[in-house]
Amino acid sequence: MQFTIHQALMPIPEGYQTIDVQVSAGKIAAIAPQLPTQGDAIDGTNQLLLPGFVNAHTHSSEFWQRGLIGPYPLELWLGELHEFSPLEPEQIYLSALATALETLHSGGTTVVDHLVLIPGQEVATVAAAVHAYREIGIRAVIGPLIYDQTLAQGIPDGGANRKSEGFAYTTTEMLSLMETVIAQFHAPEQGIEIMVAPTGIQLCSDDLFKGCIDLSDRFALCRHTHLLETQAQQRLAQEKYGCTAVEHLHRLGFLNQRTALAHCIWLTDSDISILAQTGATVVHNPLSNLRLGSGIAPIFKYRQAGINIAIGCDGAASNDGQDLLEAIKLSAILHNITEPDYRHWLKPSEAIEIAAQGGAQGLGQGQQRGRLTEGMSADLVLYDLTQLSLLPKTNPVGLLVLGRPCQAVRMAWVQGSCVIDQGQATQIDETRLRQDLLAYGNWLAHRPSTNIAQMETHYRQIMGLEP
Amino acid sequence: MQFTIHQALMPIPEGYQTIDVQVSAGKIAAIAPQLPTQGDAIDGTNQLLLPGFVNAHTHSSEFWQRGLIGPYPLELWLGELHEFSPLEPEQIYLSALATALETLHSGGTTVVDHLVLIPGQEVATVAAAVHAYREIGIRAVIGPLIYDQTLAQGIPDGGANRKSEGFAYTTTEMLSLMETVIAQFHAPEQGIEIMVAPTGIQLCSDDLFKGCIDLSDRFALCRHTHLLETQAQQRLAQEKYGCTAVEHLHRLGFLNQRTALAHCIWLTDSDISILAQTGATVVHNPLSNLRLGSGIAPIFKYRQAGINIAIGCDGAASNDGQDLLEAIKLSAILHNITEPDYRHWLKPSEAIEIAAQGGAQGLGQGQQRGRLTEGMSADLVLYDLTQLSLLPKTNPVGLLVLGRPCQAVRMAWVQGSCVIDQGQATQIDETRLRQDLLAYGNWLAHRPSTNIAQMETHYRQIMGLEP
Repeated sequence: MQFTIHQALMPIPEGYQTIDVQVSAGKIAAIAPQLPTQGDAIDGTNQLLLPGFVNAHTHSSEFWQRGLIGPYPLELWLGELHEFSPLEPEQIYLSALATALETLHSGGTTVVDHLVLIPGQEVATVAAAVHAYREIGIRAVIGPLIYDQTLAQGIPDGGANRKSEGFAYTTTEMLSLMETVIAQFHAPEQGIEIMVAPTGIQLCSDDLFKGCIDLSDRFALCRHTHLLETQAQQRLAQEKYGCTAVEHLHRLGFLNQRTALAHCIWLTDSDISILAQTGATVVHNPLSNLRLGSGIAPIFKYRQAGINIAIGCDGAASNDGQDLLEAIKLSAILHNITEPDYRHWLKPSEAIEIAAQGGAQGLGQGQQRGRLTEGMSADLVLYDLTQLSLLPKTNPVGLLVLGRPCQAVRMAWVQGSCVIDQGQATQIDETRLRQDLLAYGNWLAHRPSTNIAQMETHYRQIMGLEP
Repeated sequence: MQFTIHQALMPIPEGYQTIDVQVSAGKIAAIAPQLPTQGDAIDGTNQLLLPGFVNAHTHSSEFWQRGLIGPYPLELWLGELHEFSPLEPEQIYLSALATALETLHSGGTTVVDHLVLIPGQEVATVAAAVHAYREIGIRAVIGPLIYDQTLAQGIPDGGANRKSEGFAYTTTEMLSLMETVIAQFHAPEQGIEIMVAPTGIQLCSDDLFKGCIDLSDRFALCRHTHLLETQAQQRLAQEKYGCTAVEHLHRLGFLNQRTALAHCIWLTDSDISILAQTGATVVHNPLSNLRLGSGIAPIFKYRQAGINIAIGCDGAASNDGQDLLEAIKLSAILHNITEPDYRHWLKPSEAIEIAAQGGAQGLGQGQQRGRLTEGMSADLVLYDLTQLSLLPKTNPVGLLVLGRPCQAVRMAWVQGSCVIDQGQATQIDETRLRQDLLAYGNWLAHRPSTNIAQMETHYRQIMGLEP
């Protein structure tokens, strides 16, 4: 499969250049001001060419609850999230399609799905998501969300003895499930990877982390987990381990160059040094962090320490969309209020780099994609600069990042395969997807939550909130 | 002009209700579960009906610089903004159209334009904006942005003697200009209002404020100004007046129930009490406040004090879009990180109320519009709940506010007149507008700023930043 993009605008260190790009065998074969057409000719006039971004942390099936959960902090929000009726694999398929589609429409060509499993249908859950991602053509890294402790154990208990209720699956069963999933679905050369993704220190035993490390080493898998999203988790780590969560994960050997850590809001300076040494990546999810009142991750500190950063939307029940450009915008502007010296503020071009290169590097793919250079994988996006939201002609990257693009992606390719054309998915029927989604559920404003009712008194007490 | 919307979803205190709405003579004539069709029949199935929002603070002509200005705090950002080549009235017309269009596409039916005037063509500037707003059919409140002091005077000087350079216009000339504008363009019954809008304490003399108060009283005009957007302005007020800016404006008599104050980030508790007493409205512009690193306005404190709040996009060079739903989302989620008790966090329904009722009240129109009740002006918006960004069927208001709606507005009416149909403006040609905009300017990444070069050393010194 060959094609040549003619006369697209590409950012270069000095500004912009109008270039031609030849793509062959899934890779960027040549970039130059004028190139002969090889294969299909694509008119890039009035369009901006960028590498595809990575939606570096999401939970696709949360799509079914987006818009629904009220203003609660993570621990209570999770309580409501978990009591939702179990989904069917068909729904997993649809929500993975929807997540992929919103990611593609906002410049993402890779999605990292920390996938919530249907109890009793775990393998079918992964199969449904894999089916969706293959069908729509997005690159996907899927980490089945595994844990071996109960939700109640994830809230600090203020020094009381920790309950150790039984959990539905043993640690061994969870790891055995992972082996099955890896054997069936891990196919990096086809754009589908499985990663090990224990939920986080709040719900996982040391043995589960260790088992994941072992799998990661044996099968060369990425590692992914939630880390220190809330102050409650910071306290929990001290209760559970007598040290910080970062120190504990480091001792376990979980942190390395293929480890991506979602959130990372409540780290100490010493934790930051540890992360920097290990080469682990921080996945920033600013919208979710605001929505759940989790806090502001100290991104500028991470950059100064040399830590790689990626950007995620987080699951659609805490965001409540999957628009990567929105997450990139917030990453670019949110931190200005935490840093008095504007010389440290992110430039739009830097935000773009984080979303593309940072995302790829966090998946150990920094040498394969994330930049517009010859030999890189052709994960490419063309933005239509004649859309109102990208007008007038000013700084296209500035406007893409700081504006509010809508219908901005005109074409997108994953490994040279066209997945968006004329602003529409090429391999699935978007109208049909919307019809299928419309068939589920019913509009409602309130949903009573038994879990929140049960957890709230304890939570408020522990967090020092008025009864 | 009569029409009847059938079977739209409307939020009610208990959840949602499917209703019919009759509109007659620009007003909501009846709302009930089943009503006979009067005039045109509008199918509201799978659509959400809400009152139109108010884009309560913007500067339409900043559109021409959106995406362009780098990451700077307000004072330096303004330096670059002001050195832009003067626009032509034709450009004012186009940027007003674009501002109105993005506002309409995101649920706004009223725009409050704090309009930057072309030097020497002040009346023509207002005429061009009025032309655009009448043409597209949006309700507009236009406040010519007037000031009588120079930009350099707007930065605190740390106790040095304040320069008093001459300014292009005298205070009297500015006020005389306002009389002309009021006489020519103030036509509330036709949906176009002029308001008095001195830029802010940083650029305006007391005499200018007093003259504006006089005009406001004589012609029953709204009052509008920037207030305490930055810490630098907080310091400037002390230097200039020996008291806070709120205290000073209160003494001048500028604050009343028709006064709207953009930003209000750096107020003392005593300032908040004063605002509450006067009945003035705070216009919250969260995106601009993040972009410029200005800070987070203490919105929850304002609500507790009983101060009315409205939501604005601010000018497109500090946002850099005019999507009201984005500003509403940030208003809903940003403050969660400043308030430990989630019981004070805004619900999506409350964010909607602020954007609609709060906006109307801030313009002294709270009795005429901003709610879905009989007798109110038919400033209405129908959102298409079959768009991917508003699926699946969960809580439509939750998803509209917390999600990332795209192409969500299917129909909109201003005073019963249809301005958006099938997601497109009815009274202007959107494609033509985009073509016209594309004809201006050229893509560029960097723009050297003489003003910033001149101001930066002083600014950094005053703000205690390293040289």
